[in-house]
Amino acid sequence: MTYADNDGLANGGSGAGPFGRVLRWMKAAPLKLWDKVVEVATKAKKLGKDDPRRIVHSGKVGLALTLVSLFYYFRPIHEGFGVNAMWAILTVALIFEYTVGGTLERGLNRMVATIIAGPLAVGAHHITTLWGGEVAEPVLIGFFVFVVAAIMTFLRFFPLLKARHDYFLVIFILTYSLVSVSGYRDYEILEMAHIRISTVAVGGCTSIMICIFICPVWIGVDLHNLVASNIDKLGNSMEGFGSEYFDRQENGLPLSDNKSLLKQYISVLTSKGPEDFMANLAWWEPGHGKFKFRHPWKKYLNVGAASRQCAYKIEALNTYLNNEVQAPAEIRDQIQEPCKNICIETGKALKELATALQKMTLSSSADHHITVSKAAAESLMSLLRGGIWKDANVIEMVPSAAVALLLIEVVTSVEKIAEALHELASAADFKTDKGQVLAEPVVSEESDQSHFAITIHNSTETLPGNGSSDGIKVLSLVST
Amino acid sequence: MTYADNDGLANGGSGAGPFGRVLRWMKAAPLKLWDKVVEVATKAKKLGKDDPRRIVHSGKVGLALTLVSLFYYFRPIHEGFGVNAMWAILTVALIFEYTVGGTLERGLNRMVATIIAGPLAVGAHHITTLWGGEVAEPVLIGFFVFVVAAIMTFLRFFPLLKARHDYFLVIFILTYSLVSVSGYRDYEILEMAHIRISTVAVGGCTSIMICIFICPVWIGVDLHNLVASNIDKLGNSMEGFGSEYFDRQENGLPLSDNKSLLKQYISVLTSKGPEDFMANLAWWEPGHGKFKFRHPWKKYLNVGAASRQCAYKIEALNTYLNNEVQAPAEIRDQIQEPCKNICIETGKALKELATALQKMTLSSSADHHITVSKAAAESLMSLLRGGIWKDANVIEMVPSAAVALLLIEVVTSVEKIAEALHELASAADFKTDKGQVLAEPVVSEESDQSHFAITIHNSTETLPGNGSSDGIKVLSLVST
Repeated sequence: MTYADNDGLANGGSGAGPFGRVLRWMKAAPLKLWDKVVEVATKAKKLGKDDPRRIVHSGKVGLALTLVSLFYYFRPIHEGFGVNAMWAILTVALIFEYTVGGTLERGLNRMVATIIAGPLAVGAHHITTLWGGEVAEPVLIGFFVFVVAAIMTFLRFFPLLKARHDYFLVIFILTYSLVSVSGYRDYEILEMAHIRISTVAVGGCTSIMICIFICPVWIGVDLHNLVASNIDKLGNSMEGFGSEYFDRQENGLPLSDNKSLLKQYISVLTSKGPEDFMANLAWWEPGHGKFKFRHPWKKYLNVGAASRQCAYKIEALNTYLNNEVQAPAEIRDQIQEPCKNICIETGKALKELATALQKMTLSSSADHHITVSKAAAESLMSLLRGGIWKDANVIEMVPSAAVALLLIEVVTSVEKIAEALHELASAADFKTDKGQVLAEPVVSEESDQSHFAITIHNSTETLPGNGSSDGIKVLSLVST
Repeated sequence: MTYADNDGLANGGSGAGPFGRVLRWMKAAPLKLWDKVVEVATKAKKLGKDDPRRIVHSGKVGLALTLVSLFYYFRPIHEGFGVNAMWAILTVALIFEYTVGGTLERGLNRMVATIIAGPLAVGAHHITTLWGGEVAEPVLIGFFVFVVAAIMTFLRFFPLLKARHDYFLVIFILTYSLVSVSGYRDYEILEMAHIRISTVAVGGCTSIMICIFICPVWIGVDLHNLVASNIDKLGNSMEGFGSEYFDRQENGLPLSDNKSLLKQYISVLTSKGPEDFMANLAWWEPGHGKFKFRHPWKKYLNVGAASRQCAYKIEALNTYLNNEVQAPAEIRDQIQEPCKNICIETGKALKELATALQKMTLSSSADHHITVSKAAAESLMSLLRGGIWKDANVIEMVPSAAVALLLIEVVTSVEKIAEALHELASAADFKTDKGQVLAEPVVSEESDQSHFAITIHNSTETLPGNGSSDGIKVLSLVST
């Protein structure tokens, strides 16, 4: 319609009834279709650009199918594989997944299920021929199919089997039914089971080889990167929050727009599903790159859980930003320094942790930032405790105080992420990054400022009789 | 080992080298195996008891496979279906899912893919025979297989296609490859395509019929129940928090153990994955029970998102419980009444909303509780603003104040859930539950108490010149 309206000629037919409408539609349709094509092409280009491995993967699937087809083509008719060769093509089409873990999970489950179910069906067939008469034989076969299918289907509800061996159970049912029913017909059941197993093996092995040896996509690496980038996002959000909340103009608006930085934590909130899925598939992958076989993938889930806990705190912090009315500047100014330090230092700590995880190194640079942020949290606590706001209106001071408390909680949760990472690092034998350790501390403008703040507050906190040097616990000072 | 040790005879062989160990192992193995069997049987019993539909489903799969096998058995050899009949069995084994939505998604995608890809492969085969010579023909076929497989594989990365038509693309590749490659061999390609389509249709229709007409499991109903029960869980958590935080003994410990009630919100935090999955499959289901075809399943995702927002707030509230040291009782006592009212009333509102959603009715009983909780929030805000704590130590009052602020946020998020539910209700044409509306208000002991509180505070809040009657916004009173 839009295109027809732009066309001078089409205007003449705008009121000319159904015929005019059909004419306009016919004029507009090719342009609309072209528009749709352009839209899809743009999307496809973006998908390919975002992750070029997708294009490679598409080529790999094409290659595997073409290879198996050719293998089938160049064998004499009905000798060897024959019509059963379609099982090879079927196997490739059904098991070739994007990642090595996905392909191995489906491929190995399929092959093992075929190997176990085939002979079992042969055995069941043998028993029915021995015991059954002309009437009882199909009844017995039908009965066995029913029992096997029902039991295997019920096993699919067991959580562990569902997560790792679901495809095994499906293919077990499939192979058992096919072999026992087909076998009933042509009495060449043993040969059929044998052919089926070898064709599935050809398809399975071709897929697995191509998947592993041509630009492999390791889902373990993707999980590793996802967990690391989530921690990095939390770091960006903390830094973004610091700027957005504290760096304000006279009119109360933020100095710069940090929304895109700040909002990065949101994707971490819902990361559980993808992480669980990836860890289950990564379990299947052999050693690759820096990752050994049986890399402790489960530990990544702990790190992910700790990251989500931190993301929930940042979500809570965020509600104090979204309110149109902010606490007066003088209130915020009083706790600004330690609060901003916490934002900056936890941000840096999270980013260092992300980098260390990404590089699989034991780096102590994050520890330094955590120590600094813990000190800032202690000084913040002592400020709150010191009664600096005695004269302030209670309601005016509450939101700022709530932000302060939440920031102290963030410090605790960053510590928990560091702990989970440490466990992962020892389970996976991360190596010490020697160059990194000696390079610290780097004195930038910001870290200089925070060092300054911490030195002062540390000395305040460690005065004799203060008794609050044993780490940070929110509200732990309330009863002293 | 444990069993061998309990056995008096086995002790004699405890130090007798490898032979003794083997003997002990052989004695222990059957018991261990029996133990394992008992363990699995217990688990299976629990799975079946938790949801008896699982047992029915297992029987349904067995029935479908047996029916298709019998259908195959009672047809004369090599007439009609012949060896291709295995496609029917294969289809049943691969598409029969637990829910109607799942089975329809796989079944329809598979059938449509077979119908489209079959003729396409025949066409491609025709072109290659026309244009290609003896050498060029296999090359062309291989080339076409490669191109189709690569393009369809790439399309699987488009998010919408991935969510709804992933199986279509897989089966398209499969059917195209099989038909074009097999066709090359026996020149009966048209008949083969026709047989393949009809066998897949037999398998697909059998599965879909049995899935729909024998004790159907509608994934839409499951999604509906999940979203409703999540809101109910949030309600329980709010009530649990109220008891746990405010009903304390002299020693500061909670009066009763509400942990199990309180912790119910945790599963809501990570509900996004399952909800998205279920909504995608529910899209495929025809009308059933109270649900029409094209029921607004997407709206459930909005309700789910609003529920998660509320769960994040409860998570934040929860951190104030987990601290060992609590704010002094006198501080808590001062805001206890409106805070507890908020907990009770939002809890009730959430449960009413859950019940209304569950019953698919337009009930106003939740509105009443929301109004009451909003009034409690306003009175809480006026308490905070009124400077009741002028003499209190700042640090002592901050945690209680933070809890108060969070509770006010919870009220806002409950309102958002109600809004999302209202949108869902109008999109899905929920009916008014007449009996329900007239039955309100029920005066129980608790609601009486809260009415009392609200009346007082409402009158405080609506005094002329107060100007805060236009709903609740956290901190909106700060600048007045």
